[in-house]
Amino acid sequence: MQQFTITPKTKVKILSKRGSYDKETVYRILDEAKICHVGFIYEGYPVVIPTIFGRKEDVIFLHGAVGSRMLKTLEQGVDVSINVTHLDGLVLARSAFHHSMNYRSVVIFGKAELVTDDEEKLTALKAVSDQVLTGRWEEVRQPSQKELKITKLLKIKLEEVSAKIRTGKPIDEPEDYELDVWAGELPLRVIPQKPISDPEAHKELPVSESVNNLFA
Amino acid sequence: MQQFTITPKTKVKILSKRGSYDKETVYRILDEAKICHVGFIYEGYPVVIPTIFGRKEDVIFLHGAVGSRMLKTLEQGVDVSINVTHLDGLVLARSAFHHSMNYRSVVIFGKAELVTDDEEKLTALKAVSDQVLTGRWEEVRQPSQKELKITKLLKIKLEEVSAKIRTGKPIDEPEDYELDVWAGELPLRVIPQKPISDPEAHKELPVSESVNNLFA
Repeated sequence: MQQFTITPKTKVKILSKRGSYDKETVYRILDEAKICHVGFIYEGYPVVIPTIFGRKEDVIFLHGAVGSRMLKTLEQGVDVSINVTHLDGLVLARSAFHHSMNYRSVVIFGKAELVTDDEEKLTALKAVSDQVLTGRWEEVRQPSQKELKITKLLKIKLEEVSAKIRTGKPIDEPEDYELDVWAGELPLRVIPQKPISDPEAHKELPVSESVNNLFA
Repeated sequence: MQQFTITPKTKVKILSKRGSYDKETVYRILDEAKICHVGFIYEGYPVVIPTIFGRKEDVIFLHGAVGSRMLKTLEQGVDVSINVTHLDGLVLARSAFHHSMNYRSVVIFGKAELVTDDEEKLTALKAVSDQVLTGRWEEVRQPSQKELKITKLLKIKLEEVSAKIRTGKPIDEPEDYELDVWAGELPLRVIPQKPISDPEAHKELPVSESVNNLFA
């Protein structure tokens, strides 16, 4: 079982039994996410931006318009922190104090690097597209030279990484189990709804396979 | 319609027509969220932490254990940035380039202040509890003096705040509408699943009203 090396930045300090440095665990959490939250320092203050991303092996790709403030800042190689969190449920205890959440979360620390090579840019864009919807890349028009030119891509190596996971039932004070209060877990799930065809479509087409696969 | 004042930090620069400073819009986005992402600078590098929060009027409350590194850092009154994002759907265009997401997002910049007064701490804890699940606070055992003592609460005033929202169909290049590619929107929704009663319960109790209300 391959592990990420624990560093002072990634060591899970509070509730450390919830921590994991296992690569497969980290990949699974990352690959299920549609967005991540990117933290960086801009003009001396912290900024947190939600954004699409892609993973390929031990690299995370971020992309956006060439004018993006986030990408312009990150391409300078400054410190960046990325968080991906799935909220899996509410943990409803008998006491207000012991309420919690079930979640799977990954924290990444690193520095970004500009992707300059056109072929690597395409690899990165495919990774981002696969993250949004597996199989979509093969269905749609590929990026033109002009589109590639106005798209900026950054890569961040997965080196300083940890996961933190909570699952299961609430943990109450021993005496509180006698209270007449229902306790348990309320699972939450992100569920795709019925696809809405583009009202501007020039012709009626069946819903794409990449979308149908989500309901299979 | 009350608005937050636009500042250099909160001015939506890219795709500015998606920006909003309307207080009711911001409140609605915040109040629907179960977690937020908090960004701050720790020993010179950026950190992003997902956490529970509460809102009451123009104040955001964060809470945690007194030993929490995040709270210990923030209570010093340093700059903090908070992001709340709902991912509402995948926007599936005919070209890879024009893929997007529908979302509702709020960015907050500010500084935190320690809540020291016991009564205000209870107000803050109720706000956090209401955010997790409306009505739960009234059903459960209230915090003891000991629990209050080991819980740290911070407040951040909503002053520098903006929202950013994307809804609806994909926007493709004019010539791409002729392609034989299905395009549209795939809505995503967070759906509560069947509650799981605590297997450690000493007696069988009906599921709490606060939970049932979510399915009403």
